[in-house]
Amino acid sequence: MKNSVSSRLTERTAAEVARTIYEPPMQGFDAAALERMCALNEAHAVMLADCGLIPAGIARDLLRGIATIRGEGPGAIDLDPQFEDSYFAFESRLGQVVGTATAGWLHIGRSRNDIGSTLDRMAARDVCLALLAAMNDARQACLDAAGRHLLTVMPGYTHLQPAQPITFGFYLANVARGMEREYDRLAAACDRADACALGAAALAGTSFPIDRDLPADLLGFARLASPGLDAVASRDFVTEMLWAVTSAQVLFSRVAQDFYIFATWEFGSLTFPDRVAGTSSIMPQKKNMLPLEYFRAEAGRSIGALAGALAALKGSNYSIGLDSVREGIADAWPAFERFGASLPLLRLIFETATPNAEKLLARCSENFSTATDLADGLVRDFGVSFRDAHHVVGRAVQMVIAAGGSAADLTIEVLNAAAELEIGRSFELPEQRLRGWMDPARAVSARNLPGGTAPEAVEAVTADMRAQLAVDRATRDRRVFHLRDAERLRAERVAQLIG
Amino acid sequence: MKNSVSSRLTERTAAEVARTIYEPPMQGFDAAALERMCALNEAHAVMLADCGLIPAGIARDLLRGIATIRGEGPGAIDLDPQFEDSYFAFESRLGQVVGTATAGWLHIGRSRNDIGSTLDRMAARDVCLALLAAMNDARQACLDAAGRHLLTVMPGYTHLQPAQPITFGFYLANVARGMEREYDRLAAACDRADACALGAAALAGTSFPIDRDLPADLLGFARLASPGLDAVASRDFVTEMLWAVTSAQVLFSRVAQDFYIFATWEFGSLTFPDRVAGTSSIMPQKKNMLPLEYFRAEAGRSIGALAGALAALKGSNYSIGLDSVREGIADAWPAFERFGASLPLLRLIFETATPNAEKLLARCSENFSTATDLADGLVRDFGVSFRDAHHVVGRAVQMVIAAGGSAADLTIEVLNAAAELEIGRSFELPEQRLRGWMDPARAVSARNLPGGTAPEAVEAVTADMRAQLAVDRATRDRRVFHLRDAERLRAERVAQLIG
Amino acid sequence: MKNSVSSRLTERTAAEVARTIYEPPMQGFDAAALERMCALNEAHAVMLADCGLIPAGIARDLLRGIATIRGEGPGAIDLDPQFEDSYFAFESRLGQVVGTATAGWLHIGRSRNDIGSTLDRMAARDVCLALLAAMNDARQACLDAAGRHLLTVMPGYTHLQPAQPITFGFYLANVARGMEREYDRLAAACDRADACALGAAALAGTSFPIDRDLPADLLGFARLASPGLDAVASRDFVTEMLWAVTSAQVLFSRVAQDFYIFATWEFGSLTFPDRVAGTSSIMPQKKNMLPLEYFRAEAGRSIGALAGALAALKGSNYSIGLDSVREGIADAWPAFERFGASLPLLRLIFETATPNAEKLLARCSENFSTATDLADGLVRDFGVSFRDAHHVVGRAVQMVIAAGGSAADLTIEVLNAAAELEIGRSFELPEQRLRGWMDPARAVSARNLPGGTAPEAVEAVTADMRAQLAVDRATRDRRVFHLRDAERLRAERVAQLIG
Amino acid sequence: MKNSVSSRLTERTAAEVARTIYEPPMQGFDAAALERMCALNEAHAVMLADCGLIPAGIARDLLRGIATIRGEGPGAIDLDPQFEDSYFAFESRLGQVVGTATAGWLHIGRSRNDIGSTLDRMAARDVCLALLAAMNDARQACLDAAGRHLLTVMPGYTHLQPAQPITFGFYLANVARGMEREYDRLAAACDRADACALGAAALAGTSFPIDRDLPADLLGFARLASPGLDAVASRDFVTEMLWAVTSAQVLFSRVAQDFYIFATWEFGSLTFPDRVAGTSSIMPQKKNMLPLEYFRAEAGRSIGALAGALAALKGSNYSIGLDSVREGIADAWPAFERFGASLPLLRLIFETATPNAEKLLARCSENFSTATDLADGLVRDFGVSFRDAHHVVGRAVQMVIAAGGSAADLTIEVLNAAAELEIGRSFELPEQRLRGWMDPARAVSARNLPGGTAPEAVEAVTADMRAQLAVDRATRDRRVFHLRDAERLRAERVAQLIG
Repeated sequence: MKNSVSSRLTERTAAEVARTIYEPPMQGFDAAALERMCALNEAHAVMLADCGLIPAGIARDLLRGIATIRGEGPGAIDLDPQFEDSYFAFESRLGQVVGTATAGWLHIGRSRNDIGSTLDRMAARDVCLALLAAMNDARQACLDAAGRHLLTVMPGYTHLQPAQPITFGFYLANVARGMEREYDRLAAACDRADACALGAAALAGTSFPIDRDLPADLLGFARLASPGLDAVASRDFVTEMLWAVTSAQVLFSRVAQDFYIFATWEFGSLTFPDRVAGTSSIMPQKKNMLPLEYFRAEAGRSIGALAGALAALKGSNYSIGLDSVREGIADAWPAFERFGASLPLLRLIFETATPNAEKLLARCSENFSTATDLADGLVRDFGVSFRDAHHVVGRAVQMVIAAGGSAADLTIEVLNAAAELEIGRSFELPEQRLRGWMDPARAVSARNLPGGTAPEAVEAVTADMRAQLAVDRATRDRRVFHLRDAERLRAERVAQLIG
Repeated sequence: MKNSVSSRLTERTAAEVARTIYEPPMQGFDAAALERMCALNEAHAVMLADCGLIPAGIARDLLRGIATIRGEGPGAIDLDPQFEDSYFAFESRLGQVVGTATAGWLHIGRSRNDIGSTLDRMAARDVCLALLAAMNDARQACLDAAGRHLLTVMPGYTHLQPAQPITFGFYLANVARGMEREYDRLAAACDRADACALGAAALAGTSFPIDRDLPADLLGFARLASPGLDAVASRDFVTEMLWAVTSAQVLFSRVAQDFYIFATWEFGSLTFPDRVAGTSSIMPQKKNMLPLEYFRAEAGRSIGALAGALAALKGSNYSIGLDSVREGIADAWPAFERFGASLPLLRLIFETATPNAEKLLARCSENFSTATDLADGLVRDFGVSFRDAHHVVGRAVQMVIAAGGSAADLTIEVLNAAAELEIGRSFELPEQRLRGWMDPARAVSARNLPGGTAPEAVEAVTADMRAQLAVDRATRDRRVFHLRDAERLRAERVAQLIG
Repeated sequence: MKNSVSSRLTERTAAEVARTIYEPPMQGFDAAALERMCALNEAHAVMLADCGLIPAGIARDLLRGIATIRGEGPGAIDLDPQFEDSYFAFESRLGQVVGTATAGWLHIGRSRNDIGSTLDRMAARDVCLALLAAMNDARQACLDAAGRHLLTVMPGYTHLQPAQPITFGFYLANVARGMEREYDRLAAACDRADACALGAAALAGTSFPIDRDLPADLLGFARLASPGLDAVASRDFVTEMLWAVTSAQVLFSRVAQDFYIFATWEFGSLTFPDRVAGTSSIMPQKKNMLPLEYFRAEAGRSIGALAGALAALKGSNYSIGLDSVREGIADAWPAFERFGASLPLLRLIFETATPNAEKLLARCSENFSTATDLADGLVRDFGVSFRDAHHVVGRAVQMVIAAGGSAADLTIEVLNAAAELEIGRSFELPEQRLRGWMDPARAVSARNLPGGTAPEAVEAVTADMRAQLAVDRATRDRRVFHLRDAERLRAERVAQLIG
Repeated sequence: MKNSVSSRLTERTAAEVARTIYEPPMQGFDAAALERMCALNEAHAVMLADCGLIPAGIARDLLRGIATIRGEGPGAIDLDPQFEDSYFAFESRLGQVVGTATAGWLHIGRSRNDIGSTLDRMAARDVCLALLAAMNDARQACLDAAGRHLLTVMPGYTHLQPAQPITFGFYLANVARGMEREYDRLAAACDRADACALGAAALAGTSFPIDRDLPADLLGFARLASPGLDAVASRDFVTEMLWAVTSAQVLFSRVAQDFYIFATWEFGSLTFPDRVAGTSSIMPQKKNMLPLEYFRAEAGRSIGALAGALAALKGSNYSIGLDSVREGIADAWPAFERFGASLPLLRLIFETATPNAEKLLARCSENFSTATDLADGLVRDFGVSFRDAHHVVGRAVQMVIAAGGSAADLTIEVLNAAAELEIGRSFELPEQRLRGWMDPARAVSARNLPGGTAPEAVEAVTADMRAQLAVDRATRDRRVFHLRDAERLRAERVAQLIG
C-alpha cells in the first residue's frame, strides 16, 4: 500500500513506527493546537497572496477552508498516524474541504520544519503568559500575607534550629523576593521564544520571494528567527522555560518543606484549614498536609523533566531531528501544565497559612534565639570583643541546658559564672537590661536596617516589591494586548481576502 | 459541606487540592487497575472470613459486590476527586452495591497504605513481565540477525574512525551481550517488587489476628514485605525498574546512534525499508530514519524520569507521603509504557537492518583498518617489538595518506621506507604476504579466540547466548504461570464463599 | 615537533587538547592505580611468556622492570599529557628502566582499550568491596540500635503527622531492611564488573594465540568479558554501581530527613552528642545537625552524578570513545569516594542517636495516635463496621480538638456524643477499657504479627536480618580472600620467571 | 577536649564529621579564595571603623593583620577541619597575627552566613566574567570561520540525511546565533549574583548601626541582597550559572556531534590537523577526534551537575543549611572550571576545522539535495501546486534510486515519467533549465531572503552578530573595570586607616 504522504517512499509506514512515534504527539492536537495551526496558515496564506505567489482565488478558497476547519474543531480532522503529524493531517482535511488541487498551493516557500518551530513558539508564548499571570497571583498572595504578619514574631531558623527571632511577615517577604527572580527567569524565556521561524523553510530559507515580516506581524511575534537552521533546529526556548519553571519549583519546595514542618503536631507553628488537608482510611484522627508534600514532589519531577530534555537534546545533531525538536522536549509541555495547575494551590497556601502567634512568641522566649542579642549587648555596653562575648554567652547557654533549663533561666548569675570561666571577668548588669536584650519582640524591632526584621524594614522592602509586581503585571498584560492586536489585524486581512 | 471521607475534617476538599492532587492519578484508573483492585479485595475478604474476622454472610455479600463491580468495569465507579483516591471511590461503589453497612466491614486490619503499596507491586510485576517478554523478543531478533551476518565483513570503529575489520554478526553479538545484562537488571527489579504489603496496614501492622500469608498466596506473591513501615513507605522497586529501563535505553541509544550514522547517504552501510522511515513535507527526496532518533530521544527521557523520581524521593520522610509513594514516582509508569512500546520497534530494526556487504568489504580494503594486522605480521615474522612495528606502520600510513592514497597504496616499498625512517631497517617481504595480512576477511578470520571476530568464535558466543535466552524465557514464563495458578486458587476460594 | 606516541600523527598534541582532555585523568594516577597497572602488566607478561609469544629473557626483563616501577611509586612516572594517558606514560617509564627495545614487546595482543576496561573493572571491584564492608558496618550499627530500642515507644508518622505508636527499634528495623536491599544492589553491580577484558584488544580480539584465561585468573576475575567490542566499549558496571550508590543515598537521605526533624528544638525526639554537631560564628546558642543535612545533600549530588553519566553515555557510539568509557563516567569515581566517606558518619549517627523516651511516650498519649486502636476496639467489642467506627472516632477527635483538648480528653462521653451524631447509637464502655485501648505501649504490643511493632515481632525480624548480615559479610570476605589468592599466585609466577 | 570554635558545644568535632564535611571544602581554599576573604574583611573593617563601631586602633591592627595574611598566602593558614570552615581558620590566623583580643572585634554585625553568601557571589562574578570572555573568543572564532566559508557549498542535513545545499559559512552563522543566546543567559546569571549580602548577618540583619552600602561599594557590587534570609539562604545564582553553562554545553555537544560525523573517513567533510587528534596504542593508522567526543561528554556531565544541584537544593529548608548553600552546590564550581577549560578548545576547533570543499560540492550534485528546487521550479514555471510538484519529484527520485542512479540521472524523461504517474501530465522543460534548478551553488544563492543561505544573506546576518559581539565584549569589560575601580577605592581606604 502507498505511503500516505510521500511518493519517494514505496511502503506504508510500519505499525510499530506509526504507533510509537507519530500517534502520541498527534493525540495532543486539541482545540488550542488547532487554533494555532489555523492562525499560522492564515498568516502564511495572506502573505502568499500579498506577494503574488498564489492567485487571489486560491487564497480566498484556502482561507475559507481554514475558517471551515476552525469551525469544525479538532474532531473533524483524521489524526491517522500514517500522516506522520498534525500538519499533514490538517493539510489532508484542507484538501477534503477545498479540494487537493487548491490545498496543494498552501505549502509554497515553507516546510513542516518552520511550521513546527513557529507553532512551538506560539504555544510556548501562550504557556508563558498564563504562567506569568498565575505566578503574579501567587506572589501577590505572598506579599499580602507578609503584610498581615509584620508583627507576628516567630523563631527564625538556620539548620532548622532556633537562630534569631523574626516575624512571619519577614519570612514571607524573603520568599516574595525569591519569587521576583523566578518571574524574571520565566519572562526572559518568554522573550527568547518570541521569534517567528516562518520563512526558514526546511533549514535554508526559500527561493520564493516571500515576505518574512508579514506573517510574523500577523502572529504577533516580536522578531524573526534567523538564520534558518537555527530557527528550525533549536528549541532552547523550551529548555529555558523548563529551567525557569524548575527553578521556581525548587524555591516553592523549600518553602513547602518549612511549612510542612511548621504544620506538624510538634511544631504547631502554622495551621491550615481542613479543606487543604487529606485524611486516612484507617486512622480516624488524621489531617495530612498533602499539598506541601505535593510541592516537594513536583520540584523533583520538574528536575527530571529538565534533565531528561537536556539529555535528549545533548548530542543530537544540530539540525531538525525527532530528538532535537519534538520527542526530546515532549515532557516539557506536561511539566508546564502541572506547574500551572500548582500555582493556584500555592496561592491558596499563602492565603490560608495561619501562624499560632502566641505559641511562637512564647517559644522565642525559651529557645535562646536572642542569645546573639545578649552577646551584642555585652559588646556594646562593656567593650568586650564580639568573639569573647560569643564564647561567654555560648558557655552560659550550655550551662543552662545542662541544668535542664530554658532561656528564662539564663540569669545574670549564670552569665557571670560563664564569663569568669571564659574570659575571667564579670559584668555589672541589671537583670532588666538582660531581659530586655533577650526579649524577642525587641530583638526583632532592633534589626531595622535594610533587609532586617523590624516591621518598618519589612514594610519598606515589601512596598518595593509591590511596586515591582505592578510593573511585572503591566508588562505581561501589554504582551497579551499585543497578541490580541495581531489577531485583530490578521482577521481583517483574512476578511479582505475572503471578500 | 461535609468532607466525603473523614469525620475528622470539617470541610470539603478545596478545588485547588482536588483538581491538582487527587484528580490526575484517579484518571488512570483503568480496566487493569480495577482488576487489580478487585483481586486484592477478594484476597483480603477471603482471609477475613477464613480468620473469622467477619461473618460468613458479610463475606459472601462483599465478594458478590466485588464480582458485580468487576463486571461493571471502571466506568461505573464515580471517580470524584473528593474521594481522594481510587480506593475510597471503589469502597463507595461497593457501598452502593452491597450497602454501606456491609461495605464498612471490608477495611478491617488494613489501610490505604498497604493496599496502595500492594497494588503498586502488582502493577510493577505485570509491567515487568510484559517488558521482559518484549526484551526477549528484541534480543532474539538481534541474535537472529547476528546469525545471518557471521560473514558480512565491515569496518569496526573506535572513536568512529575505522579501527579493525569485524563482521556485522560480531557487532550484533556484542549488542546481544549487552541486552543480556539489561534483562538481568529488570528481572532483579521484578523480584524485588514481588512482596505483599497487605497486613502492614498504616505502617505498624494491625492488632486484628489476620493471616498475612493467605492474601499473599492468593495474589501470587513470592513473599511478605516486612516490617510494616518499610513495606508501605518504600517504592525503591519502582526506581529500580526505572533504572533498569533507563540502562537498557542507554544501550539502545548507542546502537541507534551507530545505525543512524551507518544509514547516512555518506556511509551507506545499512539500508532500511521505506516502511521504517519518515519523509519531508518540502523535500521530495527525503527518507529519514526517525526510529533511530527516537531511541536517542527516549534514553534522554528515561534518564529524566529516573533523575526526577530519585529527586522527588530524596529527602522525603521515611514514611508514607505523597512524594514518597505516589507523586514522586508518577513519571515512572508512562516511562515503562513508552519503553514497552519501543521494544517491538527495536525488534523491527534488528529484523530489517540490511548491510551493504559489497561496499563495506571494499571500504575495509581502503581505510587502513588492517594496519594492526600488518604490525602483528612484522612482530611475528621479523621479530621486531610491537611498539617498533606500530611506529613503522603508522609512519607508512601517514606517508600514503600524505600522498593522497588509500590502503592499496601501502606497498612493500612504502613500508620499507617507513621502516628505515623509524627503526633503521627494512624487511624482505613478498608483496603477497603483505596483501594477505591486509586482507580484511582474513583479518576477521584470524581473530578466532573467545570473543574474537572469526565466524566460529561469534557462532560459539551466540550459541551460548541463545541458550541463555531460552533459560530467561522459561524463567519469565514460569512466573506468569505462577500468577495464573494464584488467580485460579483465588477464584476457587471466592466461589466457595459466594456459595 | 613529533607526536609523543604516534608516527601516524605529524604534530605534537595541542596544548588545549593536552590540558583539557589528557591531563585531568592522568593526575589521578595514584599509588593504587599504579599497583593495578603493575599487576595487570605482570599478568599479561606472564601469559605472553607462557604462550611462547615473547622470549624468556624479555619476559624476565619486563617483569623486573615492572617490579622496579612498583617500587618507585607513581612519582617516578612522567605524567606528561603528551603521552595521552597513564598507560603510555607507564610504557615510557618501562622503556627508561628496561630499554625501549624490550619494553616494546609488552604490547603484543592487546590495546589500551582492553587494558583500560580491565583497569576500570579492577578499580570498580576494589571500590565495591570497600563500600560493601562499610555498608555492612552501618547496617550493623542500625540493627544494634534497633536492638537497644525495642521498648522505646514513639509516635509513628505518616505525612509527618502522628499516625500510630511505634518503637524506635521498629523504626530502625525498617531502615535496616531497606539497607539490605541496597547492599544487594551494589553486590550485584560488583558481580557484573568482575569480568576480565584482556584479550579483547582494540575491540576485535587478536590473531596472536594468547591465553585469555591465564591473566584473568592471575588478576582474580570471575570470568572473561566477551565478545571484544562489548568488553571494551561498555561501562555499564560503573553506572550500575552509581545507581546502587544513589539508591542507597536516597534511602539515607530519607532517614536523615526524619532524624533532622526529630532533632529540632520543637520535636526534641532525638538528641545527638555535641561532637556530631556544628555551631555558628554569631549565634552563641547554636547546635546544628550538619551531618543530617549532609546526607540530604549527598543524595542530590549522587543523583546528579548518575544522571550526568547516563546522559554522557546516552547516544555515544557503541564503541570505545572518550565519552563512552572515560570522560562520561568521570564523576562516578569521586561519587563513590564521597559515599565511602559518608558511611562511617552514618554508622556514627546510628550509634549516637538518643531518643528522649519519656517525652516520646507522653506525646503518644496526647496526639491521638491510638485513635485506630479505639476504632478497632469498637469493631471488635461492639460489632460495628470498621468504616462506622472510623467515622465515630474521627468525629470524636474533631470535637476534642475543637475544644482545645488532647487525647486524654477523649472520654466515653465525647465518644458517645460522636457516635450518636455519626451512627445514631452509643456504647456501654468502661472508661478503663477505653483508656486501655488508647494506651500507646499496649497498642505497640498488640501489633504482634510478622512485620508489626510488638517487641517480639521486631526481635524476630531483626534476628533474620542479623543472620542475613552475617551471610553478606561472609560472601564479601570470600571475594577479598579470592583476590588475595590470585595475588599470591601471580607473585609466584612472576618470581619463577624473574628467576 | 574542647570544641575549637564554640563554648556551647562541649566536645571536639568527631573525626567522621570533620573529615567528611569540613575538610573537603577547606581544601579548596586557594590563593583566589584568600584574596576574596581578605577583600571582604577589609571592606567590613573599613565600614566598622567608618561607623565608629570599632576604635581606630583596632581597625588599624585588623587591617594590618589582613595585609600580613594576604602576603603570607593560603599556606600560612591552618586549615584544620576542627575550625569548621575557612572563615574560622582565617579568624584564627588573624588572632595569631594581631592577637585574639583584637581579632575578636572583627565579627561585629555579621555572621559566617552573610560572609559565605558574599564570598560565593564574588567567586560567581569572577567565574562568570572569565567565562564570558572565553565564550566571546569562541564566538569570534566561529564568526571568523563563517566569514571564510560563505562560498563553501556543502549538504545541509535534516535527520542527518541530505536536505538542501547550504554553505559551511551558513552553518557556522547559525551556530554563532545560538552562542549569542548562551552568552545572554550567562550574563543574566552574572547580574543576578551581583548583590552584596553583608549586613544580612545570620539571617535577620543586625542591631548594630552598620552601613550596608559601604562594603558593597568597596567590593564592587551592583546592589544589596535583601531581605536577609533570602540573602543568605539562596544560591539560585549558582544554579542559574550552571543552567547557563549546561545550556551552552548542550549547544556545543550538538555541533560536536555534527563535526564528529563530518570528520569520519566515510563523510570526509571536515579535516582537522593532527594536533587536535588522538591515536591508538595498537592500531597504527589511527587519528581519533577525541575533542569532539569531549564536548559530547561534557554536556552530559554538566546536565548531571545541574540536576544534582537542583536535587540537593530541592526540599532543603528555606534557610541556611549545608545542603542549601554549600554541599548542595559543590559540584557547580568544578563544572564551571571544566567549562572554562573547554572554551579555548572549542575556539581551536572553529579555527582548524577545514571543509573538503570539492568533495562537498560534488556530493551536493549527487545526493538529490536540490530536489526541492526542482519542485519549486515546477511550481513557478508550470503552475502546478506545490504538493503535486512534491509528489512528482519524490516519485522521480524514487525511480532513479531504484535504478541505482544518482541525481545526475534524474533527467527530463524520468521527471516526466514520474509526472505522468503522479498527476497525469508532463512538462516541456529544457534539460538545461532542469540542470540549473539542480545546481547546488545556484540553489544556495537563490535563498537570499533574511536567514537564507545566499552569501549576501549570511554576510548580513554575521555583520549583525559581529556588532553584537562587540557590544557584549564592551559590556563585559566595563564590569571588569568597575571591579578594578572598587579595588582601588578599597585600597585607598585601607591605606588611610593603616596610616
